[in-house]
Amino acid sequence: MQFLSDNAAAVHPRVWEAMKAADTADAPYDNDALSRALDERFSALFGRECAALWVATGTAANCLALSALVPPHGAAVCHREAHIEMDEAGAPGFFLHGAKLLLADGESAKLTPQGIAAVIDPIRDDVHQVQPHAISITQASEYGCVYRPEELEAIAALAGARGLGLHVDGARFGNAVAFLGCGAGEAVGAADVLSFGFVKNGAMSAEAIVFFDPEMAATVRYRRKRAGHLQSKGRFLAAQIHAMLEGDLWLANARAANAAAAELAGACSQRLLHPVEANELFLACTPVERAALREQGFGFYDWGEDAARLVTAWDAKAEHVTALARAIAAL
Amino acid sequence: MQFLSDNAAAVHPRVWEAMKAADTADAPYDNDALSRALDERFSALFGRECAALWVATGTAANCLALSALVPPHGAAVCHREAHIEMDEAGAPGFFLHGAKLLLADGESAKLTPQGIAAVIDPIRDDVHQVQPHAISITQASEYGCVYRPEELEAIAALAGARGLGLHVDGARFGNAVAFLGCGAGEAVGAADVLSFGFVKNGAMSAEAIVFFDPEMAATVRYRRKRAGHLQSKGRFLAAQIHAMLEGDLWLANARAANAAAAELAGACSQRLLHPVEANELFLACTPVERAALREQGFGFYDWGEDAARLVTAWDAKAEHVTALARAIAAL
Amino acid sequence: MQFLSDNAAAVHPRVWEAMKAADTADAPYDNDALSRALDERFSALFGRECAALWVATGTAANCLALSALVPPHGAAVCHREAHIEMDEAGAPGFFLHGAKLLLADGESAKLTPQGIAAVIDPIRDDVHQVQPHAISITQASEYGCVYRPEELEAIAALAGARGLGLHVDGARFGNAVAFLGCGAGEAVGAADVLSFGFVKNGAMSAEAIVFFDPEMAATVRYRRKRAGHLQSKGRFLAAQIHAMLEGDLWLANARAANAAAAELAGACSQRLLHPVEANELFLACTPVERAALREQGFGFYDWGEDAARLVTAWDAKAEHVTALARAIAAL
Amino acid sequence: MQFLSDNAAAVHPRVWEAMKAADTADAPYDNDALSRALDERFSALFGRECAALWVATGTAANCLALSALVPPHGAAVCHREAHIEMDEAGAPGFFLHGAKLLLADGESAKLTPQGIAAVIDPIRDDVHQVQPHAISITQASEYGCVYRPEELEAIAALAGARGLGLHVDGARFGNAVAFLGCGAGEAVGAADVLSFGFVKNGAMSAEAIVFFDPEMAATVRYRRKRAGHLQSKGRFLAAQIHAMLEGDLWLANARAANAAAAELAGACSQRLLHPVEANELFLACTPVERAALREQGFGFYDWGEDAARLVTAWDAKAEHVTALARAIAAL
Repeated sequence: MQFLSDNAAAVHPRVWEAMKAADTADAPYDNDALSRALDERFSALFGRECAALWVATGTAANCLALSALVPPHGAAVCHREAHIEMDEAGAPGFFLHGAKLLLADGESAKLTPQGIAAVIDPIRDDVHQVQPHAISITQASEYGCVYRPEELEAIAALAGARGLGLHVDGARFGNAVAFLGCGAGEAVGAADVLSFGFVKNGAMSAEAIVFFDPEMAATVRYRRKRAGHLQSKGRFLAAQIHAMLEGDLWLANARAANAAAAELAGACSQRLLHPVEANELFLACTPVERAALREQGFGFYDWGEDAARLVTAWDAKAEHVTALARAIAAL
Repeated sequence: MQFLSDNAAAVHPRVWEAMKAADTADAPYDNDALSRALDERFSALFGRECAALWVATGTAANCLALSALVPPHGAAVCHREAHIEMDEAGAPGFFLHGAKLLLADGESAKLTPQGIAAVIDPIRDDVHQVQPHAISITQASEYGCVYRPEELEAIAALAGARGLGLHVDGARFGNAVAFLGCGAGEAVGAADVLSFGFVKNGAMSAEAIVFFDPEMAATVRYRRKRAGHLQSKGRFLAAQIHAMLEGDLWLANARAANAAAAELAGACSQRLLHPVEANELFLACTPVERAALREQGFGFYDWGEDAARLVTAWDAKAEHVTALARAIAAL
Repeated sequence: MQFLSDNAAAVHPRVWEAMKAADTADAPYDNDALSRALDERFSALFGRECAALWVATGTAANCLALSALVPPHGAAVCHREAHIEMDEAGAPGFFLHGAKLLLADGESAKLTPQGIAAVIDPIRDDVHQVQPHAISITQASEYGCVYRPEELEAIAALAGARGLGLHVDGARFGNAVAFLGCGAGEAVGAADVLSFGFVKNGAMSAEAIVFFDPEMAATVRYRRKRAGHLQSKGRFLAAQIHAMLEGDLWLANARAANAAAAELAGACSQRLLHPVEANELFLACTPVERAALREQGFGFYDWGEDAARLVTAWDAKAEHVTALARAIAAL
Repeated sequence: MQFLSDNAAAVHPRVWEAMKAADTADAPYDNDALSRALDERFSALFGRECAALWVATGTAANCLALSALVPPHGAAVCHREAHIEMDEAGAPGFFLHGAKLLLADGESAKLTPQGIAAVIDPIRDDVHQVQPHAISITQASEYGCVYRPEELEAIAALAGARGLGLHVDGARFGNAVAFLGCGAGEAVGAADVLSFGFVKNGAMSAEAIVFFDPEMAATVRYRRKRAGHLQSKGRFLAAQIHAMLEGDLWLANARAANAAAAELAGACSQRLLHPVEANELFLACTPVERAALREQGFGFYDWGEDAARLVTAWDAKAEHVTALARAIAAL
């Protein structure tokens, strides 16, 4: 009964089907019909013109997205606990040729205009200090919390006022939209580019970089190839994305994961360290309690000394979730 | 009837089966059982201790392999028409932080000790000139030609004498081994690292970087993650590789592709610009002749003004091959 | 009456003389007699075998030094207010190809083993997190404070235990040695490499990178050229360094600057935000007070809202120092 | 009697005077009065608005200039024997983050529109091949030959038609202008940026990057600092440049060097491998002949097996030149 992460969950049957269906001759790289249809598909979803590129990982999606916004001598502001800072092995430094991440604070790994300003305001406008060129936020955040449309608006306003680009790491974008109950467009606000994650939500190996300024995609196409991320059988990545979007499978899967998380949250509301808005729970939990849960067969990560992280995937089994909820309640 | 490339061919049914079988819970990244079994598998195949990392593309495989051999201020010698020079969008410059490729000449895109020496001998041993640190050869070459074991030995001897690392781009390594009829180890010689290609030979999205010095892999693991190439559901890449190696599927597929190429070669031996040893043919062919072939439904690439490139894939249909052979003969 | 910085102070007459004396024909780059004599000179000064390279700036010295210790996928630990983090425009990211700086805390911009451990202990030993490869400290620190030999020993012990390299940014190394009253070797401890600054201390445009492991210099020679820092008339940089070392001019100049700082410190001991150990003072000072000082003709930098930074250079005029001391005392 | 190179020649007395005169308090970096006056000075010289940045070396000048024209995923076309390709240790790869140099052919290291087209025309307009973004030419060329205004015009026209930037490496720009007898503006044509060399022509350590689009300089200012090339006592570099420009010292010095070369050329017109237009001579000369010259006390470089390179500096002594001319004639 694994609640370690959603990142290694099963592949949804409809994704499998779409991949199998793509196993016919077509042009290589992203010249196949499925890849060529992505721009239109995302444009329809977001209600504005988009250009979308597939890649296999969220790290590649985030860093290629940022490469359109930040020059090598610049910086992006992100949360101190952002995935790009903590868990991508310095990939932004590689893809951005040494550009910096400027670390801001904020509750539950969410940035605020105040938190961002606290980081960039002290930067002298001279060549000795690295200047910010973009803001990167995570929707839903690394602590499973969701930016509301008005929060996105406030950050976008700051970005606009300071001439900064805005990137959204949407590794769990589906979970955010499912929580907000709004359209995809509202959940991303006036961002320039979105890393739209599918792998944690039922796909196998396909994420989309969605550019809301299609011109940006032109340069990133070169960067994607140059980073070894242009797969020759790219039709299999495009197929996954189409399957996830078809009939809003991405939303259905995210809702399932969120519902499981909500059930668990209901069982331990006193223990929660962050609001449970998506599919991650962070709960106070002593080593003895964690050991007790593990003895009952539940897998999860420790989160520091006295907490645990639980993640529910799209395919979480109802009986496992209920069993865990009970086990936690019984601690 | 496509003879454009093998890079977008179908996925072999046994690869599909293995991928489906991998769709069960396991650890993320390369901590799953399948990924962890790769070192042993390749060690058995090559008869010496190896460490193997999967990646999704040949470009990533080549560049990560080279990153273990060439520092940012160094260079690798490769053929003037090597894939890393011609068709990877400058990826070596990205992965190697600006290291150079030094371009050597040789028949049919194969390097020789003489050709390599002609490039590196004139380099002054001072800080003003970029010093070579490695040699990269392609087995089979970009013109479908295969290094014989004694040719590999001679290059490895030069590399050893000059203190250079040796990398083999094996995007079509299977075709080379199938042609040589020798063991995998003999077909790679004393190389330090091999990019072992599977995507052109029946896999979907998995190549292996095989390090014959396992210590090299330790650093490259960080570089792979940093380049966004560590997929969280890596088990699906490992599964592809195991399926390709199981029962020597890689060899069977390569033999099929080579046989198709040989059949075509038999129909146009007067036209051949390079010996046909693997699964690529380069033949003299006027624009009029090419138009005639295309009218009959054959797809292929022009190769300059008066030549064509034909590539046979593992799944080339016998009737298509025969039809093309006849059509060429009838020109 | 400028107390803005020591970085634009005059050039010492003996440095001028040495430069003029070098204006004769000699070999280019660092093949001249003066450049070739540097290794021996620094070896004598530090009492162990050194290899020394000149460069024109402290930024180049620091970053080239670090490039010998930190691979592109690694990190160096430094103080949150270290010059390499705050005032070098992201140069470490450039020279180290995207490697990270991990920011530690400590009084007066000095690191401690505890502060360093607090940063590196939480780093998981996996490929998702950037691993530390070196520690960089500044002697004297950015707040004008000096590491005692036993403090250096403790940091070097930690570095050794964790397998980390140790770099010392000695932009004001002379001031540190002058304060400690010890030998140069004791003031740098078991560091691997020192950026030995001369420009702030009477030279025009020459700093030395001193490698205590001479083998490291071999690679950095290539990196220096590659970074455009190998001047063809390098003899003029070597001449500056020799002049600074001759008769311990570097120490005499540093003592003069320190003495001036000490005189000022005596006049405002209640206001000091950091101990005055070298040639920098940070003092509490309201905007009104700062305006008053400026009206009397004193130049200096604001340091946040309610503080000022004063720096005394080697050529500070006694009457200016005394005047400023009085002016501060009279506030 | 040295004819090895002009790169380590003496510093002109007027440069020394200007440097001494700059040894007064002024603002650090390039905030001093001399540095701030450079834009205007070069604007007057070239008759159009310029922005100029000093750096200490030609390598830094060339690479920072190119960084304004070529993105990391792009390429610059240069001659196969260009200094940036042959003698800068891969610096373009470092400063441009792995961008490529595409090598073109041409007589005497001069590019022609045909030579450039031969390199860029075969490049497919797809993401697999590195796209050219700029052309870099050397005025005077590495073989001491000078582009005529109409040749510059033709290259600029090609650059314009293909959307390529144009960089001129003017390490010996003075010698080119002296030869052409035209204005500085005509000798650089419609270039975007010029590396204006002074070190080989009487300065100590100052070159200028002259941007004919002043906006380009804004970004390069950050890159210069980031590369460790922003010296804190920058006033000494600016002083050198002003001294070289004052009263056209740069032209007088270049004329002297050219005249010396012309005198030598007159003595060996049969031996010349390239026209002598600036201050370099390449002459057929057997090993025995070279030994004979060296025995008479003349220093110079071998150029392959059967040739020699002679370079005359601004301070070449008339009696040395005449002696060498006679010695060559007597061979």
